[in-house]
Amino acid sequence: MRPTVKLVEESSSDPRVRAVFDDIKATKKIDRVPDFWRALAAHPEHLEMVWTRLKATMKPGKLDLLTKEIIALAVSITNSCRYCTNSHTAAVQKLGLSKEAYGELLAVVGLYNMTNKLSDALQVEPDVLPEPW
Amino acid sequence: MRPTVKLVEESSSDPRVRAVFDDIKATKKIDRVPDFWRALAAHPEHLEMVWTRLKATMKPGKLDLLTKEIIALAVSITNSCRYCTNSHTAAVQKLGLSKEAYGELLAVVGLYNMTNKLSDALQVEPDVLPEPW
Amino acid sequence: MRPTVKLVEESSSDPRVRAVFDDIKATKKIDRVPDFWRALAAHPEHLEMVWTRLKATMKPGKLDLLTKEIIALAVSITNSCRYCTNSHTAAVQKLGLSKEAYGELLAVVGLYNMTNKLSDALQVEPDVLPEPW
Amino acid sequence: MRPTVKLVEESSSDPRVRAVFDDIKATKKIDRVPDFWRALAAHPEHLEMVWTRLKATMKPGKLDLLTKEIIALAVSITNSCRYCTNSHTAAVQKLGLSKEAYGELLAVVGLYNMTNKLSDALQVEPDVLPEPW
Amino acid sequence: MRPTVKLVEESSSDPRVRAVFDDIKATKKIDRVPDFWRALAAHPEHLEMVWTRLKATMKPGKLDLLTKEIIALAVSITNSCRYCTNSHTAAVQKLGLSKEAYGELLAVVGLYNMTNKLSDALQVEPDVLPEPW
Amino acid sequence: MRPTVKLVEESSSDPRVRAVFDDIKATKKIDRVPDFWRALAAHPEHLEMVWTRLKATMKPGKLDLLTKEIIALAVSITNSCRYCTNSHTAAVQKLGLSKEAYGELLAVVGLYNMTNKLSDALQVEPDVLPEPW
Repeated sequence: MRPTVKLVEESSSDPRVRAVFDDIKATKKIDRVPDFWRALAAHPEHLEMVWTRLKATMKPGKLDLLTKEIIALAVSITNSCRYCTNSHTAAVQKLGLSKEAYGELLAVVGLYNMTNKLSDALQVEPDVLPEPW
Repeated sequence: MRPTVKLVEESSSDPRVRAVFDDIKATKKIDRVPDFWRALAAHPEHLEMVWTRLKATMKPGKLDLLTKEIIALAVSITNSCRYCTNSHTAAVQKLGLSKEAYGELLAVVGLYNMTNKLSDALQVEPDVLPEPW
Repeated sequence: MRPTVKLVEESSSDPRVRAVFDDIKATKKIDRVPDFWRALAAHPEHLEMVWTRLKATMKPGKLDLLTKEIIALAVSITNSCRYCTNSHTAAVQKLGLSKEAYGELLAVVGLYNMTNKLSDALQVEPDVLPEPW
Repeated sequence: MRPTVKLVEESSSDPRVRAVFDDIKATKKIDRVPDFWRALAAHPEHLEMVWTRLKATMKPGKLDLLTKEIIALAVSITNSCRYCTNSHTAAVQKLGLSKEAYGELLAVVGLYNMTNKLSDALQVEPDVLPEPW
Repeated sequence: MRPTVKLVEESSSDPRVRAVFDDIKATKKIDRVPDFWRALAAHPEHLEMVWTRLKATMKPGKLDLLTKEIIALAVSITNSCRYCTNSHTAAVQKLGLSKEAYGELLAVVGLYNMTNKLSDALQVEPDVLPEPW
Repeated sequence: MRPTVKLVEESSSDPRVRAVFDDIKATKKIDRVPDFWRALAAHPEHLEMVWTRLKATMKPGKLDLLTKEIIALAVSITNSCRYCTNSHTAAVQKLGLSKEAYGELLAVVGLYNMTNKLSDALQVEPDVLPEPW
């Protein structure tokens, strides 16, 4: 399969694209730009919008980076996204998630994909509610 | 709306159901059985299978309980499960997740639901791969 | 909540709508037209297209009607469709599915929603393939 | 693509893994362990939990095995799970589902994926309800 | 049901929130802030990020605003999002989509939700490919 | 990967299949039948039903063909359907959608996949409602 757009070269002459590419490599401490970003770069304004948002969102805050990547992986698996499941599995691995912890993550993701559907099937109305924050 | 099955009373005379109900209340430190479990109890063997599995999976291990509940919430939101989104939001709140941390969780879940679809749209082949564990 | 269109009355003067409504009641042996069909009737041509197709598809063939309704229910639960989960649960019940059989259906639907995601998470390539029919 | 974990060899020296692998082959009457199970085996406790549950759930009961595999296939298609769609298509084929019956299954799965979304679009409240079992 | 956070009052004293609320009302030409935005405002930085992005994305460009709202509605229906299906249906209606055009939109959304699953079921490899842009 | 059925040859001797294949090529102005239709043709009655419906639904009406294909693409991306994402991207391209317009479409699809989940997470009840058509 090939992407729907031409992947933009890292050596792109568009200064906006170059700036984002450089920031991606510096922020993620990697030496090549992943193809997802090279595809998004077909539309430089969109690339900038997505990267800016991702960088702001993934900055460690009340949740640390590993927890945020674990959430990203849980979402990607639940959405059956192949590219994202691979790249976020690689990310949690790089951040030190052990094989055992990965196994626990799988078990939790599997379990709640099951109970979500059991709950939908049974049509139970919510009775355990958070106190609005 | 009403459930598709009659909710089983906590005072059920079925010993298998009673044992699970008691264990749910003791394990979760709550004093009533949530309706999801009362609905599952319409089929005692299934109730037992789901609860046993949930209890084993949610036991703190390499991942702590809060991280596991965060994963459960990310999955439930991504699946648009109303009952589960409410109950897992209540769970992370009870475990001490702050309002700010909850805001970060929302931002991460929202972001990757977006990038998952951008990646599917662009049909990029996985190029960032984990080292098989 | 209210529907996005005005529900069409059973006494509609549109002959196309009336014909479909009469056929729905006769085919399903019910004495009122469910709201889903009354909503679709806001667009008579679309109503006709959906009903014609549904009638042809649900006609007992190599698979009997109960098996077809079981499939409809499994799809509706997996899609978290509230209206459909209710109406197809009612349908299998009317066709005689016992409480025990319903419990087995729930267990199977729950189980494969779990293994589907485990399989996506692990990124295993298909190795068990049907012989093309 | 490669799996996120190393597939465990059938000749694994872990007795828990061996026991499950042997049981899979005996129960399914196959002479090699499918890759899904070899991947799950990277976490033996999880493998055991999933297999035990699957074996109990798929045991013929009020629903026969073919009906259960038909449900599994309908769920897998609706979730767009490639591995699972292949393996459950192979399973229903092995259990004797004819080409014509498979065509009917496709038509039913397609139809309800359509009506599920029409119902969500029109925001019709459930009016056809089962009598709680 | 109640939201998981306290809805922020339009008269909020937080200047960042006020600025976004004022911009929402001016941009959308409405005189009250929809509850979705009042809920997001529980986290002012997130509110700002989502609104800024939405405003930039929905600005008429090569695609006009109605086409963009039609896409938003198609996505919301496919995701079974109740709040969003209501608000984007209201939006296309306000922009002048006729009842007949709405019927066509429903038919198209329904149709492709069906063919998407038939295609997944049949496991056909992509053979109609765009020329990468 | 191979399809689950044998693709039917364009030179099929089944007159019903031949008629649909000829109509597909004439209607879409293409000189070969895409594999999706060759797979559906394994069940001629189903092929006819899907094609007839698709042809009627995609006929330009109140919405023009490009808008309908844009909806089809938005649905296909949201469902993560690979075959369909490729073929509908090819379709909008053939109908003249520019690279810039495609970029806007991606941004809109991405954005609402995000806000759909934020809205589900926050459990906000619909407050912006269409006037029933």
